[in-house]
Amino acid sequence: MGVDRLKIRWNGWGWAAHKDELGGREAVWTWLASELGMPALLATPARPLEELSLAPPALYVEDRKALVDILGADRLHDDSYERAFHALGRSYHDLLRLRAGDLSTAPDAVVYPRGSDEVLAVLTLAAERGIAVIPFGGGTSAVGGVSAARGAFHSAITVDLSAMDRLIEIDPVSKTATAEAGITGPALEKALQAKGFTLGHHPQSFEFSTLGGWIAHRGSGQGAKRYGRAEDWLVGAKLATPRGLLSTGDFPASAAGPQLKDLVLGSEGIFGIVTEATVRLREVPKVCDYRSWLFPDFESGMAAVRTASQDGLEVTVLRLSDAEETRFTRLYGELGKPSNLPRKLVETYLELRGFDDKACALIAGFEGDAASVAQSRKQFGAIAHKHGAQPLGRGPGEAWRQARFQAPYLRDPMLDRGLGVDTLETNVSWPKLAALYAATREALQTAILKTVPREGAKGIVMCTIADAYADGASLSFTCIFPRALDGDIAQWKAIKLAASEAIVANGGTISHHHGVGEDHAAWIAQEKGPVGIAVLRGVKQVLDPAGVLNPGKLLPG
Amino acid sequence: MGVDRLKIRWNGWGWAAHKDELGGREAVWTWLASELGMPALLATPARPLEELSLAPPALYVEDRKALVDILGADRLHDDSYERAFHALGRSYHDLLRLRAGDLSTAPDAVVYPRGSDEVLAVLTLAAERGIAVIPFGGGTSAVGGVSAARGAFHSAITVDLSAMDRLIEIDPVSKTATAEAGITGPALEKALQAKGFTLGHHPQSFEFSTLGGWIAHRGSGQGAKRYGRAEDWLVGAKLATPRGLLSTGDFPASAAGPQLKDLVLGSEGIFGIVTEATVRLREVPKVCDYRSWLFPDFESGMAAVRTASQDGLEVTVLRLSDAEETRFTRLYGELGKPSNLPRKLVETYLELRGFDDKACALIAGFEGDAASVAQSRKQFGAIAHKHGAQPLGRGPGEAWRQARFQAPYLRDPMLDRGLGVDTLETNVSWPKLAALYAATREALQTAILKTVPREGAKGIVMCTIADAYADGASLSFTCIFPRALDGDIAQWKAIKLAASEAIVANGGTISHHHGVGEDHAAWIAQEKGPVGIAVLRGVKQVLDPAGVLNPGKLLPG
Repeated sequence: MGVDRLKIRWNGWGWAAHKDELGGREAVWTWLASELGMPALLATPARPLEELSLAPPALYVEDRKALVDILGADRLHDDSYERAFHALGRSYHDLLRLRAGDLSTAPDAVVYPRGSDEVLAVLTLAAERGIAVIPFGGGTSAVGGVSAARGAFHSAITVDLSAMDRLIEIDPVSKTATAEAGITGPALEKALQAKGFTLGHHPQSFEFSTLGGWIAHRGSGQGAKRYGRAEDWLVGAKLATPRGLLSTGDFPASAAGPQLKDLVLGSEGIFGIVTEATVRLREVPKVCDYRSWLFPDFESGMAAVRTASQDGLEVTVLRLSDAEETRFTRLYGELGKPSNLPRKLVETYLELRGFDDKACALIAGFEGDAASVAQSRKQFGAIAHKHGAQPLGRGPGEAWRQARFQAPYLRDPMLDRGLGVDTLETNVSWPKLAALYAATREALQTAILKTVPREGAKGIVMCTIADAYADGASLSFTCIFPRALDGDIAQWKAIKLAASEAIVANGGTISHHHGVGEDHAAWIAQEKGPVGIAVLRGVKQVLDPAGVLNPGKLLPG
Repeated sequence: MGVDRLKIRWNGWGWAAHKDELGGREAVWTWLASELGMPALLATPARPLEELSLAPPALYVEDRKALVDILGADRLHDDSYERAFHALGRSYHDLLRLRAGDLSTAPDAVVYPRGSDEVLAVLTLAAERGIAVIPFGGGTSAVGGVSAARGAFHSAITVDLSAMDRLIEIDPVSKTATAEAGITGPALEKALQAKGFTLGHHPQSFEFSTLGGWIAHRGSGQGAKRYGRAEDWLVGAKLATPRGLLSTGDFPASAAGPQLKDLVLGSEGIFGIVTEATVRLREVPKVCDYRSWLFPDFESGMAAVRTASQDGLEVTVLRLSDAEETRFTRLYGELGKPSNLPRKLVETYLELRGFDDKACALIAGFEGDAASVAQSRKQFGAIAHKHGAQPLGRGPGEAWRQARFQAPYLRDPMLDRGLGVDTLETNVSWPKLAALYAATREALQTAILKTVPREGAKGIVMCTIADAYADGASLSFTCIFPRALDGDIAQWKAIKLAASEAIVANGGTISHHHGVGEDHAAWIAQEKGPVGIAVLRGVKQVLDPAGVLNPGKLLPG
């Protein structure tokens, strides 16, 4: 089995053995309390699994036996840990429920199939017997994509793909690789890089998320400008469905009707389970050069990002923090660290140069051979200079790259201190961007102010332009706020509603890279329109007529 | 109305006023006859429209009246010319039937709606009354995509989009444009280029084909390496369906489930009619530099094309002719032209350098600013040199660019001389390419030998790598052969069957850029598989439950 589930936290982010360095940094908590207008931050630990009681597994004895007949007894688990581990994903809503000990969505069993045939057999059985099936890759969904909701069915099983983690083949001629869907980011990259290749798909969940999950939620990595989104690097996939196996071929391009891989991408487990995929590779870049610039304000930074994206600059990462995120990151970075003379000098210099609290930090990553990296860096430097930016060198860029998968680990210690932290994201065309940014920020701030636990408390709302295209960009909002401890799920719903309404009203998609899951299903009808929803339901009807696959995700109830 | 249908040939390619320069070049015909093993080429003119009799329009009087109520009398045409013009497209099979005077697929009426609402009204009516509806853009389909087959319905109407040809908006900030689907290549480019932009989509049908047609058949232009395929440049589309309007949004990217524009792309009029689209633009390149190289053989040329594609070279066009096409083009170009001393010198030089009848010509087009063009040209030059190629300078490259839309005009004079000429194309991953090439060539040659009208006659079978990707390439085959005049449709079917079977058996897609239409529908089930076909039928059932849209296209009968 690829990743031992016992080594991963069942109710929080990441490795169980991960050392929390934030919890004990009292200076941070004091500062955060004052930023949030709170006199102090309370300890609010999560409930331990031992304290919780799970409903007994609802799977009928004969259904359990039939699954064991297909898979063997060792690949069906229904102990408490496995059921709790697979109850929910890692959205903020999920974490609130897990920490409170709400395991009402725990599956009745978790199965670990090996290969498309076993997945097909499980799906056929589930469709016949009316068992809800929840596909599970890394379980890192940030939008409620893996909660084991059973819908109208009597029982639910989670199909954990982690035993399907083989790299099947690397084709060095076409520069493609074929792998089973349950392979995780690190395992895939290790195998590819041993042959000089990389997929280059690095979402924040990289350590745990899987190839199949990236495809099923139409994901995008942090280096998507160079390596592409899932729809760019996917050559073809196998989707096991109750109707049978859909295999979408390996054509580099085709005009033979709609391409069915486009329906696999973003299908979020409601049409079937991705079992295998062929993907395009790049060669491992010889040089990686990550740098930072400081722009006078968000507008100038945005103009530089747009120019770079439209000029087709060879850049791997381009992330622009808004003023609030820039300020927060700088202050946060200061706390609890030894005094840093060069950094102080830089700050003083920047103040003298007139950068004030509107200043916005940008990280640009360049990858490739030495000559092309040097050229792109020079080109971007010229664009940045034209827009009044000050280069900050490699330090902050490299620091970001080193810590790029660490941010999710910060949520648990924050939750332990009575804080809420959520991220949401969108993508919008350039002309609509400024209005969407302002409205969403405003909506988040207002909703937080309305739901904080005491007068004078407030939230921190930050934004990054995390990816940019010729015709628009994606915005990632992060908000930190004091939790309304007597109703933190209602608080989250109010904040989520306000932000989502602002995004949709301003022409943004409800998700650029998190997907839909349960959390965005309420807005999908607005985005797709009634005809679009009818089409998706039609496809569902063909592939999963019994409706057993991932109830409650993607499509509105 | 965008393009006056009377100015276009109803039974052949292009402008009625186009001057045929080939028909009178007797040297060409003598040479071709000898190449094809024929003693002489017979005159086989097409039957004039005046000679033909069309069945009276089958449209019920009340249906005709209802259409006139929607559109006005001036936008419903059912005279002989309009009905004949819209009977078929421009595939070889279509041309054979048109020239023979087979107008059994003529629609009962042709309507010219303006705007999505009128298209929706026509579709609603057609679905209620059971009238087959054939969407028609430029009518240039090379695969039987617009033949007005009525399926099981009593009557059929063609919906000609040429009155919907407005450029609605250019957004210079996002560098996108929104236009009605009936706008033709030249009209769109003229309007865009006036503002400094280009879509850069240049299929061979560019003069007549339309934005909507490019999307509906998931097309690809000759400069797709720079400007992308339809799926690359399409931001969003409106699809009018009997179920209502599907509008796919304008998000630069989205992870909100499957993207419905991907179902519009390649839908070939069976799900609905594309009425409007938003597309990504590029700036008009400052420099266009088209050049030619001669490679020692097909393998060395292919290796250079693969390297250039995988290194991500900034190239717009990359076309490698096989040895037979290189030989044919050179000889054909020689005939009937004044003696050309520099060319003769080049040829002598090349012979001295050891290039023989295995030599293969390549055309590379570079577009952009002067610096990037110079750099890419140099990079490609180095790759070509490494593979033993000899640069031939700008002459042949520029000549190709000048004549890039002219090739289809050559078919009619050939048909006038008892010759058949057809093209077919595919796309395949690199490791499968050599076997597919050999097998398809062999299949074409054998099928032609079996069906030629006399002993000793044979065909000419040529191939171009017309587009290349990191993971594979597209092959375009052209064959010229003496027609079996007493059964030329059966002959074509035998040749088509042999080639298509070879393509599919060797892992190629049944189409890289022509689409499916009627001609490839027999192979789509093999390509998509039973589950894939069920999905497409499911989508059709949702959007067009009456099944009135474009009967017989895309999906097998």
